[in-house]
Amino acid sequence: MNLDIAVLAGDGIGPEVVDQAQKVSNAIAKKYGHTINWTPALTGAAAIDAVGNPYPDETHQICMNADAVLFGAIGLPRFDNDPSNPVRPEQGLLAMRKKLGLYANIRPTLVFPSLLHKSPLRQELIENADFVCIRELTGGIYFGDKGRDESRNTAYDHCVYTREEVERIIRLAYSYAMQRNKKLTIVDKANVLETSRLWREVGQGLEKEYPEVKTEYLLVDAAAMRIIQWPEGFDVMVTENMFGDILTDEASVISGSMGLMPSASIGLHTSVFEPIHGSYPQATGLNIANPIGTVLSAAMMFEYAFKLMDEAQEIKDVVNKSLAEGVVTEDIAGKDKAYGTSEVGDWLAAQIK
Amino acid sequence: MNLDIAVLAGDGIGPEVVDQAQKVSNAIAKKYGHTINWTPALTGAAAIDAVGNPYPDETHQICMNADAVLFGAIGLPRFDNDPSNPVRPEQGLLAMRKKLGLYANIRPTLVFPSLLHKSPLRQELIENADFVCIRELTGGIYFGDKGRDESRNTAYDHCVYTREEVERIIRLAYSYAMQRNKKLTIVDKANVLETSRLWREVGQGLEKEYPEVKTEYLLVDAAAMRIIQWPEGFDVMVTENMFGDILTDEASVISGSMGLMPSASIGLHTSVFEPIHGSYPQATGLNIANPIGTVLSAAMMFEYAFKLMDEAQEIKDVVNKSLAEGVVTEDIAGKDKAYGTSEVGDWLAAQIK
Ligand SMILES: CC(C)[C@H](C(=O)O)[C@@H](O)C(=O)O
Ligand SMILES: CC(C)[C@H](C(=O)O)[C@@H](O)C(=O)O
Repeated sequence: MNLDIAVLAGDGIGPEVVDQAQKVSNAIAKKYGHTINWTPALTGAAAIDAVGNPYPDETHQICMNADAVLFGAIGLPRFDNDPSNPVRPEQGLLAMRKKLGLYANIRPTLVFPSLLHKSPLRQELIENADFVCIRELTGGIYFGDKGRDESRNTAYDHCVYTREEVERIIRLAYSYAMQRNKKLTIVDKANVLETSRLWREVGQGLEKEYPEVKTEYLLVDAAAMRIIQWPEGFDVMVTENMFGDILTDEASVISGSMGLMPSASIGLHTSVFEPIHGSYPQATGLNIANPIGTVLSAAMMFEYAFKLMDEAQEIKDVVNKSLAEGVVTEDIAGKDKAYGTSEVGDWLAAQIK
Repeated sequence: MNLDIAVLAGDGIGPEVVDQAQKVSNAIAKKYGHTINWTPALTGAAAIDAVGNPYPDETHQICMNADAVLFGAIGLPRFDNDPSNPVRPEQGLLAMRKKLGLYANIRPTLVFPSLLHKSPLRQELIENADFVCIRELTGGIYFGDKGRDESRNTAYDHCVYTREEVERIIRLAYSYAMQRNKKLTIVDKANVLETSRLWREVGQGLEKEYPEVKTEYLLVDAAAMRIIQWPEGFDVMVTENMFGDILTDEASVISGSMGLMPSASIGLHTSVFEPIHGSYPQATGLNIANPIGTVLSAAMMFEYAFKLMDEAQEIKDVVNKSLAEGVVTEDIAGKDKAYGTSEVGDWLAAQIK
């Protein structure tokens, strides 16, 4: 197969971790007889510095022409704490989501048995945790009208959802639940918000089409509690954009292995695969960043973008092997010997033959 | 002193737990020479059943005339999962908040040494956790315009904040920080929302007036992580209504002692004191509900509404004594002997002489 992949490495540790995922992907392609055509493109602070736009048109065209996008991370401290800065890296992220129609962000929450002690939660609560959070990514308060009145003393953000947007993402969530343990938790705030009442209405309408799936509705405040109290109770969770931003980040820390966590953003035009950790600027260039989140994102890419299941599985297998054999970066190594970012990448690639 | 207190016991276990807080308050009043005049009033499902309105005008008048309001809990299962029901108990809560101008909800997150093992978090992470969450309670997306288009296929909720609303609550948060460890965390989503940029602007303006306080800004997604990863890092946290709903509930479970947690809602007209647990309908009438959250809410009432510090302290002392001596309900007792709701109340009241 010919695989056209856009590479948006971005800022901070982005380029380093993406590098390792490319090594591993190339090894997989070689073994299984695929040809990968990587096309790098600018995004984030790097793109602001180069062309004054965090998601330049040229980058967008490269993504539109690609079968998939491998993404690193964006953001740099000099743009932080200055939300009034007219051009900010995260605007590039939001523009990319909207223009590529990335309507669903998928985040598996995985627990790695050898890393249970890293979790802030008590071990017995998370041993069997294994769920997927699906976050709506192109609607809601992120993309509604926002602004100030003339005096600048009143600010507003409008949250809007259409039935089509809600139906699309809840259907996707049901399709995941059907492939997993057939339980879907729809998270909303239907006791207060009209948009949430629309979500619940749509959910209640679709329930009948998926009689095998046990559907439950959970208020967002209760969900924030249950993620900590009983994470094993979830199979697939789906929610709107703002709630998803909060809950997926909350869920990401319960495994204690944030550096290992991948994600996929499913798009109308193409899909984007990226680790959930950020640009971690302090670690830039130090060869200490954990590349596994990006490598597992590449595994998701083989699975979701190319339907190459064996290839995806082999990547997951070598990752598990590296964890078992302690070929890991310092965030995971603890008191044991730590490997560098590129050593881990080389080791993983070398396992694939 | 003459203390006029409205009692809104509400639904589920509300009446039982409020009863105990009244017993304890009466004992305190007797000891310190105060006269409490309790005026009961209807709210929640109980009020819907009686007069078709979860926050009847008569109840509102009673609250307006009171020095403070002691509140139990509202909500019953037959109103749940039916957000389209035109009259719902939580509307009464929202109406009460708006009409009494309850602009700030204050929730201490306390860890009880004898109950550390009940926390879902690893003990070493929470041993020294002690922070206060302050949630804006009468603005934002809860109270903005909301509705549907004609086709009912598009739903919207408007989030609005004025500079005055933001300034009022951030000032309150600073006054708490000044009395505590002089650290304030302002939680927002300034990289996406215009209302959050207003919050940050106001915060940055007020910082200078409180040079002794260390102010930090934290994005809501990062806050959701840090509450679990490093709860000891917070002193006072302040945030807007919707984020506060999620984060205060998340924070409430880290102590593992939800049934013990009090709250205060500071109002323009009067203030309301209530436990953070809900109406827990399954336990209604079983004499098993934990009354301590409500008893400690009464302690907050003596402190905040009446500035009776010794009285408040004595309530906290007897509560600590009950925990130390194991005079507790089954949620706390574990394998040890459990006391009934009213036994705990009687015991606490009897300690005050
Ligand atoms: C950077 C920011 C705009 C973004 C979001 O809020 O969606 C980030 O937090 C995320 O979750 O990808
Ligand atoms: C019942 C509901 C409207 C309420 C809220 O969302 O404010 C509750 O969750 C709370 O936190 O007091």
